[in-house]
Amino acid sequence: MANDRLRGIFTPNIVPLDSRGEINESELRRYCDWLIERGVHGLYPNGSTGEFTRFTFEERLRIIEIIADQVRGRVPILAGAAEANVRETLRACEHYHSLGCRAVAIVAPFYYKLSPAGVYAYFKEIADNTPIDVTLYNIPMFASPIDVPTVKRLAEECPKVVAIKDSSGDLPHMMRMISAVRPIRPDFSFMTGWDAALVPMLLVGCDGGTNATSGVAPEIMRKLYDLTVARKLDEALDLQYRVLTLFDAMLFTAEFPEGFRAALQLRGINTGKGRQPKSDVQEQQLLQLTRQLQCLLAAEGFTKEPVGGCSVGEAMDPDAIARIVQGVVGELKKRGIA
Amino acid sequence: MANDRLRGIFTPNIVPLDSRGEINESELRRYCDWLIERGVHGLYPNGSTGEFTRFTFEERLRIIEIIADQVRGRVPILAGAAEANVRETLRACEHYHSLGCRAVAIVAPFYYKLSPAGVYAYFKEIADNTPIDVTLYNIPMFASPIDVPTVKRLAEECPKVVAIKDSSGDLPHMMRMISAVRPIRPDFSFMTGWDAALVPMLLVGCDGGTNATSGVAPEIMRKLYDLTVARKLDEALDLQYRVLTLFDAMLFTAEFPEGFRAALQLRGINTGKGRQPKSDVQEQQLLQLTRQLQCLLAAEGFTKEPVGGCSVGEAMDPDAIARIVQGVVGELKKRGIA
Amino acid sequence: MANDRLRGIFTPNIVPLDSRGEINESELRRYCDWLIERGVHGLYPNGSTGEFTRFTFEERLRIIEIIADQVRGRVPILAGAAEANVRETLRACEHYHSLGCRAVAIVAPFYYKLSPAGVYAYFKEIADNTPIDVTLYNIPMFASPIDVPTVKRLAEECPKVVAIKDSSGDLPHMMRMISAVRPIRPDFSFMTGWDAALVPMLLVGCDGGTNATSGVAPEIMRKLYDLTVARKLDEALDLQYRVLTLFDAMLFTAEFPEGFRAALQLRGINTGKGRQPKSDVQEQQLLQLTRQLQCLLAAEGFTKEPVGGCSVGEAMDPDAIARIVQGVVGELKKRGIA
Amino acid sequence: MANDRLRGIFTPNIVPLDSRGEINESELRRYCDWLIERGVHGLYPNGSTGEFTRFTFEERLRIIEIIADQVRGRVPILAGAAEANVRETLRACEHYHSLGCRAVAIVAPFYYKLSPAGVYAYFKEIADNTPIDVTLYNIPMFASPIDVPTVKRLAEECPKVVAIKDSSGDLPHMMRMISAVRPIRPDFSFMTGWDAALVPMLLVGCDGGTNATSGVAPEIMRKLYDLTVARKLDEALDLQYRVLTLFDAMLFTAEFPEGFRAALQLRGINTGKGRQPKSDVQEQQLLQLTRQLQCLLAAEGFTKEPVGGCSVGEAMDPDAIARIVQGVVGELKKRGIA
Repeated sequence: MANDRLRGIFTPNIVPLDSRGEINESELRRYCDWLIERGVHGLYPNGSTGEFTRFTFEERLRIIEIIADQVRGRVPILAGAAEANVRETLRACEHYHSLGCRAVAIVAPFYYKLSPAGVYAYFKEIADNTPIDVTLYNIPMFASPIDVPTVKRLAEECPKVVAIKDSSGDLPHMMRMISAVRPIRPDFSFMTGWDAALVPMLLVGCDGGTNATSGVAPEIMRKLYDLTVARKLDEALDLQYRVLTLFDAMLFTAEFPEGFRAALQLRGINTGKGRQPKSDVQEQQLLQLTRQLQCLLAAEGFTKEPVGGCSVGEAMDPDAIARIVQGVVGELKKRGIA
Repeated sequence: MANDRLRGIFTPNIVPLDSRGEINESELRRYCDWLIERGVHGLYPNGSTGEFTRFTFEERLRIIEIIADQVRGRVPILAGAAEANVRETLRACEHYHSLGCRAVAIVAPFYYKLSPAGVYAYFKEIADNTPIDVTLYNIPMFASPIDVPTVKRLAEECPKVVAIKDSSGDLPHMMRMISAVRPIRPDFSFMTGWDAALVPMLLVGCDGGTNATSGVAPEIMRKLYDLTVARKLDEALDLQYRVLTLFDAMLFTAEFPEGFRAALQLRGINTGKGRQPKSDVQEQQLLQLTRQLQCLLAAEGFTKEPVGGCSVGEAMDPDAIARIVQGVVGELKKRGIA
Repeated sequence: MANDRLRGIFTPNIVPLDSRGEINESELRRYCDWLIERGVHGLYPNGSTGEFTRFTFEERLRIIEIIADQVRGRVPILAGAAEANVRETLRACEHYHSLGCRAVAIVAPFYYKLSPAGVYAYFKEIADNTPIDVTLYNIPMFASPIDVPTVKRLAEECPKVVAIKDSSGDLPHMMRMISAVRPIRPDFSFMTGWDAALVPMLLVGCDGGTNATSGVAPEIMRKLYDLTVARKLDEALDLQYRVLTLFDAMLFTAEFPEGFRAALQLRGINTGKGRQPKSDVQEQQLLQLTRQLQCLLAAEGFTKEPVGGCSVGEAMDPDAIARIVQGVVGELKKRGIA
Repeated sequence: MANDRLRGIFTPNIVPLDSRGEINESELRRYCDWLIERGVHGLYPNGSTGEFTRFTFEERLRIIEIIADQVRGRVPILAGAAEANVRETLRACEHYHSLGCRAVAIVAPFYYKLSPAGVYAYFKEIADNTPIDVTLYNIPMFASPIDVPTVKRLAEECPKVVAIKDSSGDLPHMMRMISAVRPIRPDFSFMTGWDAALVPMLLVGCDGGTNATSGVAPEIMRKLYDLTVARKLDEALDLQYRVLTLFDAMLFTAEFPEGFRAALQLRGINTGKGRQPKSDVQEQQLLQLTRQLQCLLAAEGFTKEPVGGCSVGEAMDPDAIARIVQGVVGELKKRGIA
């Protein structure tokens, strides 16, 4: 049974938009192929990176339809299915099931901050009525936290709940979950959403990652996974340090997920502009970030260096990034989310 | 110009649901009349108390249509218009304008936590394109915070931005906003969403409140407003203390807004059950709370006492409530939102 | 009994230091006289503003001895008595009692963050063995929080506990405490340490304030108190707005309590330099702040304007201050303390 | 140079007290021997586990004197030297240097929450004047955080700053520090204070741990270190999971460091009672915890099972512990410290 666990790198994909801000279907199809060709084990549309909240219900359905049609079973699809309420969510579950998705991922209720009892009741109601397997999605940065006892209770009571994606980045927390659930549900999968700690997370027993970085550098995240599984630790950790720099740059130097969108554009995917308006200052910062990302990606062989080249400092200035990370972690912390 | 400011008590109304969980149109109409008859100055549908995130786009439109049709100009309507993205939000703005609403209220972006620059860009884009006046809605408990410099900048640059509803409950913060904005925009209105501090908020210059408690006890919140405006301070403060107990009980002893729904049911409005599933433990707690609320409401003359009567301790046990408040404030704080 | 409550403005005084960083006894004596002459109702040495943690045990004793000797009963002294452990604290209590202090103020345990049960046990042990009345000191920004049920329990069980100084700045929290304690202990006093909200705090029932601003502008804080007690609300609120600007400037634009020290220097008290080292950047910021404070104090008639005069914007730029407050409140929040 | 780095497991030792609450010198000496015999690489007195804030200055000096005299160079001593201000801290540094300590550890300023600039200025002043090497001690749970740019700047400018002890438990944060500092200071040591993540911390490049658990189970923490250094990962991770359970139980089920004291008592060290008073409820909880710890320690072969034996559930109930951890992590988070 444990062999059937969800495993590997699932990419929470960005949705390319056209000049009018509509879903760019052909580019989305091309992007799916691009990702699969570069080795990701699965796709995870309608996640946080996929900006599910900025699309309408109809658009979210359409995104899954396009991807399911394009993927045609080459890799499993984990479809984000969080909707306005349980009934709408179940409608989405049924549809994604009919499209052949492997499972859905459902983020804990957000906006309102629910207690553990409320989080439990929400997932229980869904799990008891869904035709498709459910991955719990814990992202305390953005939504009500799913605590360890709640994960355990749902794992015990709900066979349809088969995995958790945890984006807290807290290693002992992950260990506590694995400790609590694995003995009673060997088929239950643990996926980390915290790219900066993929290697140690895999080492303590995670089955894989749903990492935004894999949407930009699928080759690297796949390699990070393979190296770790093969216990080539020194290589893995060396690569993890470089992923940390890239991840920090993309995550912390622009409004999420703009840094990932900018990097993906550099990789040749025509992402278009995001739907969230940007101030002039933000546009300028994004330009600066793009140049820095180009240097980082060039250092990995994925792009050319920008005009003027990359000074050592520019390509990989962990110091400047550290300063920015500090600022943003501060911002996040002050909102209680990091 | 300052005379045209939004003023008074605007009720963020709950939406009654029928046994299938659908909008109960006739009860919603009856509820609107009930509120207006009891003196509220305006209605504020599709707010947090109105659980806007748990309805679909179509349902949110329908709620405003019903209310606009029922109110027929007797009181102004402040229509919650936050949608998935700017384009959808503007569609809602246009529709609510055509229905004769006085203004819309738009919560800062949520789920993703935006920086002040991002919050600014979002509201600026909306304000530059909306046909209807906009009320900023700051609720750091649930959404990206709107800070003082951002409020000031939007007030300076956007004539369509005419008010802010602030639910932070932070009195000096409100004073800082008034200090920054009133000199340049005497027509700009400040509304507090923190029922526990309505009197002091009005004293420092707020124009009114959008208070969930007014949906349950409109008579009291209206009286609180009138007493304060008339500078009958001793009476006002005495009543404020009683409102604090009632508000704490409704806000902190159940998942929001279940406590308000339970109290409203006691007032004779057939609210139906909320859409968010509840665990057995939560159902039992809600029953307990309902009995306690009945005592609180009976003490104000709004209902009969429950069978068995209300001991002094039961009717008004600030101690028990304090204990609960402490626990929940802790919960909120640990999520960085109080 | 309620007539004996601690009341009025108690100044948490800074300790002037000489050029070697030692206590400047003569200037401390002059400062005490200066404060009393300007109307403060009491002194509160060894508080947070008094930087009690940066002095040794012997120095803290010496500070109280000097002040008790200088004050000679003209105003009551509330002596900060928090020491390394209960035994040391009780030694301090006994000494301050023998010096004729009115009461001691004891901050909740800090560094380690204690649970409510631990906070209770700590104060209970002290209260059962102290010869002098005790004021609980709640400053969740810096120390373990003292929650409402704990305040109530201590008020019930410990006659020696006669007051709480609360620096949380949370108005409904203060109301909850008053609600819980006043009925059972009419002699119990509530003092607010949040200068920005003195007027509303007094209105809801506080007995006074222990406000750092009163160490710099005793005339203003005394006037604020008198106006509020006399229910001259419009004047009081107008002054409260100006105090907010001054308080924000002193509190948020420098490491606490450097802003207050700089302002006090401008008032002619030779404070000397603080013991906490400052970086060059911090020294420069403090110079800038000093100029701004001089304009604020000049606007109140307490000093001359600085050379070059004060532009309107410079003297009172709530905008600039707002921006700074925002930043610092962010800093505080990210540490969970505001 | 890198060979001289501080390395291995340094035990932040508890100080045994006698029945009057005084330092129990003979038991402290016996405890030092006991730890050294069980393989710890160094001692770290006057740390957080050593409750430095609950002793007087004179007692802190005495603790180091006793330990230095007892250890007589068998293992290096890292002496906690944080005092009321820079001058007092330097006095302690000089004394500990004269006693032959390897280095001092100095926690960032606490009570007041300093900005990075203030933290920098504080350590710079100390580092420029100390005769003994300095370990920065970052414990954002209790003291002002030391951020990555500050660590880097101090490492660059101050040769006397030779290490950081980081108790944040944040793995990417540790990686960012190593990334920033190791290239410029190969002799700089990184020690983790987060026992629950020792293995992954060592894997990413930490040099060792200052782990409270090593004061209770030195054999285990030493083995964890040796296994990891020898890259026997499966054994190391298996042991890390058991350490997590033990650590969680000791850390989260009682006021820190009472759980560690209770466990140490079970190991046969006569710790005496702590100085912080406990309420009846806390005493009872501690009794319960002691029984549970006895089962955990018995499972590792360190003690007998308690009378009545250990049911499987009792000895190792990760579920119950998880529930408690959840509660306490909540408590910590609500104070912004986890």
